[in-house]
Amino acid sequence: MDQLHSPFSQGSRANRAGRRIYDLLRSQIADGSLAAGARVPSTRALAAELGVSRTTVTAAYEQLAAEGFLVTSVGRAARVASPPAARTPTGSNARRRAKAAPSLSAFGRRVASIEMLGLAVAEPARIDFLYGAVASRDFPALAWRRGYQAELLRRQHSLYYVAPEGDASLRRALQGYLRRARGLACDTEQILVVHGSQQAIDLCARLLLDPGDAFVFEEPGYLMARRCFEVTGAELLAIPVDAQGLDTARLPKDDRARLAYVTPSHQFPLGGVLPIGRRLELLHWAQTHRAWVVEDDYDGEFRYGQRPIDALQSVDTDGRVIYVGTFSKALSPQLRLGYLVLPPELVPVFRQAKRLADRHAPVLDQRVLASLIDSGTYERHVRRTRREHERRRAALLDAIARHLPASATVIGAAAGLHVVLWLPFLRPQDEPALVAAARSKGVGVYAVSPLFARPPSRMQPRPAGLILGYASLSVEEIDQGMRVLAAVIAARGAKPSASVTKAKRASAEAPGTASRG
Amino acid sequence: MDQLHSPFSQGSRANRAGRRIYDLLRSQIADGSLAAGARVPSTRALAAELGVSRTTVTAAYEQLAAEGFLVTSVGRAARVASPPAARTPTGSNARRRAKAAPSLSAFGRRVASIEMLGLAVAEPARIDFLYGAVASRDFPALAWRRGYQAELLRRQHSLYYVAPEGDASLRRALQGYLRRARGLACDTEQILVVHGSQQAIDLCARLLLDPGDAFVFEEPGYLMARRCFEVTGAELLAIPVDAQGLDTARLPKDDRARLAYVTPSHQFPLGGVLPIGRRLELLHWAQTHRAWVVEDDYDGEFRYGQRPIDALQSVDTDGRVIYVGTFSKALSPQLRLGYLVLPPELVPVFRQAKRLADRHAPVLDQRVLASLIDSGTYERHVRRTRREHERRRAALLDAIARHLPASATVIGAAAGLHVVLWLPFLRPQDEPALVAAARSKGVGVYAVSPLFARPPSRMQPRPAGLILGYASLSVEEIDQGMRVLAAVIAARGAKPSASVTKAKRASAEAPGTASRG
Repeated sequence: MDQLHSPFSQGSRANRAGRRIYDLLRSQIADGSLAAGARVPSTRALAAELGVSRTTVTAAYEQLAAEGFLVTSVGRAARVASPPAARTPTGSNARRRAKAAPSLSAFGRRVASIEMLGLAVAEPARIDFLYGAVASRDFPALAWRRGYQAELLRRQHSLYYVAPEGDASLRRALQGYLRRARGLACDTEQILVVHGSQQAIDLCARLLLDPGDAFVFEEPGYLMARRCFEVTGAELLAIPVDAQGLDTARLPKDDRARLAYVTPSHQFPLGGVLPIGRRLELLHWAQTHRAWVVEDDYDGEFRYGQRPIDALQSVDTDGRVIYVGTFSKALSPQLRLGYLVLPPELVPVFRQAKRLADRHAPVLDQRVLASLIDSGTYERHVRRTRREHERRRAALLDAIARHLPASATVIGAAAGLHVVLWLPFLRPQDEPALVAAARSKGVGVYAVSPLFARPPSRMQPRPAGLILGYASLSVEEIDQGMRVLAAVIAARGAKPSASVTKAKRASAEAPGTASRG
Repeated sequence: MDQLHSPFSQGSRANRAGRRIYDLLRSQIADGSLAAGARVPSTRALAAELGVSRTTVTAAYEQLAAEGFLVTSVGRAARVASPPAARTPTGSNARRRAKAAPSLSAFGRRVASIEMLGLAVAEPARIDFLYGAVASRDFPALAWRRGYQAELLRRQHSLYYVAPEGDASLRRALQGYLRRARGLACDTEQILVVHGSQQAIDLCARLLLDPGDAFVFEEPGYLMARRCFEVTGAELLAIPVDAQGLDTARLPKDDRARLAYVTPSHQFPLGGVLPIGRRLELLHWAQTHRAWVVEDDYDGEFRYGQRPIDALQSVDTDGRVIYVGTFSKALSPQLRLGYLVLPPELVPVFRQAKRLADRHAPVLDQRVLASLIDSGTYERHVRRTRREHERRRAALLDAIARHLPASATVIGAAAGLHVVLWLPFLRPQDEPALVAAARSKGVGVYAVSPLFARPPSRMQPRPAGLILGYASLSVEEIDQGMRVLAAVIAARGAKPSASVTKAKRASAEAPGTASRG
């Protein structure tokens, strides 16, 4: 065993000898052959006996003394320390214990009990319509590297923890960016930089929900957010979404819901845009019931045809909206950078919670991002990738129109980086087999059913559906992948339609139309 | 207001015009001058009226329609959408609401109510003995930059979330490192990469403690860990530490404590090393009561004179120890990288919780770190900085011996990056004035009292104490700073001693001796 900071570090032979002496004595103490109070050989004697230097033996003894195995005092022989009051735990005990369930908190038990969607299976499919993945070639590696190098060179006197709310330069840059891009007016003090939108949601869940509370959630909705709220022990109130997002007429009338989680700019996964009437209704509901509204603007920057919809936060005059933003779509989900825009009254408690949770976001990444926003590089990058995504989206819609049956319906295409494909000739129960069949042909597609909190019923039937993310694929891959998917679907009961009229109709559609399927 | 993805993006004039039209109509709808159902001017008419292109007007109308302000249909004039059911929340309401306390979860209320030590005040002192700060010049910027560039170039096909437990290459590298450096044998599966030791501690608190439980905590101990456990609503059981760390004879006899948090390799802040007898006693206690032991090995790599003490985890045969490691001391606290080594039975729930908390640690940083460990660069770096710290430590001990009164006692110097200085001629109540006086002279020192959960009593009196971190300072700064501190202390009632004999005695002391003050 190599030693990092070894007293035996003058040479590898002495090093090894010292370690041997240490190990020998320690095992003799452990097995009782050197009993408590027993004198160990003098350093001189042992050194002579083993043919090593006295320094080596002394170092081993000092190590054993520092760890409490030996008692030493100047001028007296070292002795084995008093026996520990406790027996060494035995291996058989360990095995016996391991069988019982570990003792966890109520939160821990809830976390352990929930079923999670697996991550993308270990091996990505050859052509993977994985929602949330972005193309590696879209990442602005050159600009990022330059920014990173510049920040590495900008030496601080010392490196210490920084404020939990995040780097001041990034929060300033974000404030301007949010105003320009999302119509969102806020003070830099309201911004809290976090490890991606997942942490933003987790902080909301921890700070705002108790067991026995309830929370409003879109049905269907974003699973990783639902899980976060569920593990608080609060009850899910699933409110259906339609082509315009959350059906605010069905918001609960009582005060139990402490929070509503919504994706108003582009409902996940169905793609509806919450109209102003519903926005105001939701805010009024929140005001009346003193509930919080968590606005997850996960892909608000990627809207085609129209300017991005202004954030819900921009019409909130009562300080009920907690805005969640992320860089996972525009840069990379692997960076783990996102942010909250908080109502002023929540700022202190969120900062404190962030500090307790993990102090603050990494400093270098924050500064690089701030410099990219300040220089305009970030916004140019977003515009460029948006054009890329627009080409991918067109290729996807085109391929669907050409290869898939006419009854297959695409929704949610007006914005974002995914669509939902409804297959009215298949049932939700058919989704797993469909997904597996596509994967066996090298194409990754994903079932929509896990995003529903409730199974379909006779009252609320629904067809099979797939989520198709296209942000990581080339135009060619998209077309190829859709051909394969069409064949897989055809084999399961519906004939692909190559109807030219339909293809033409689809490409002539206004972008907005497709999103309200 | 600039628009990121504007339909008006063909030129800045059209852009501004489109936005003006949008804003105008939206404000007229908001103030009722355009009532629900009212027809808005045709695009042709408005374009002519305003002298802009019809495309510009159409884009503005489409934006308003997408946001639900207008209803459009092909061949018919656009109309203002039906009035929202809810009134727009008013400003006066907002002000009224803001006065009531925000509604928070029980956890949120506890977080909001605790008093935290401030961060280091905004402006660091000229010479700052800030514990936890490391020297910027110690950071291996060149190696890090090279590693980072290499990782940026190593393109993945697409960028997606990775597994919550962390990058496989980093966990493999860590496994080898922990075996070599910390005597810790574990499977890579047991390692979970987190955002610094703070997140490791937070995950333990969330997953293992409920309100009404109790937890064992060192008195005095690490405040940021104490706060994390306290905000779960569990009760603190403060067990005093002596020169050998936690006094295990005083561990509670009942089953209420679900967890003990310890710093066995170098007690924070007092510096004792938990001897093997106490280690086994602690493990036996944990086994008997089915409690978990959180071992925070926050600076285990920096031990002077002896080889670093093997981790407590290395003698745990019952799977009760959760080992917490960090790169904050060896690299930078601003990186936010640390890890847990978990008992196998806790692996699934911690991974799931990490995923819900923030998905995973940033990928690039993890890979760079893995490459530095694999190439041996990291261990060479640790050895090099350890020599630096050893010089700083010697300078500190020397300066204390030369400038401070003979009765001032240094403890905890055998390891780590700080010492505690007891000033028996001053009382704990004197600490704030002392700290303020030193700071007014440009020297940052920190009171030890906040690290005690309980105030001193007649039964347990204690003198004033300061924590002196030296990892970010030069040898010259350390000497200068101690001169200033000595003068400040002298002004408060004790004479500095420049006794040459004392200085000689101090420097002749074995490193171990000073840590057991």
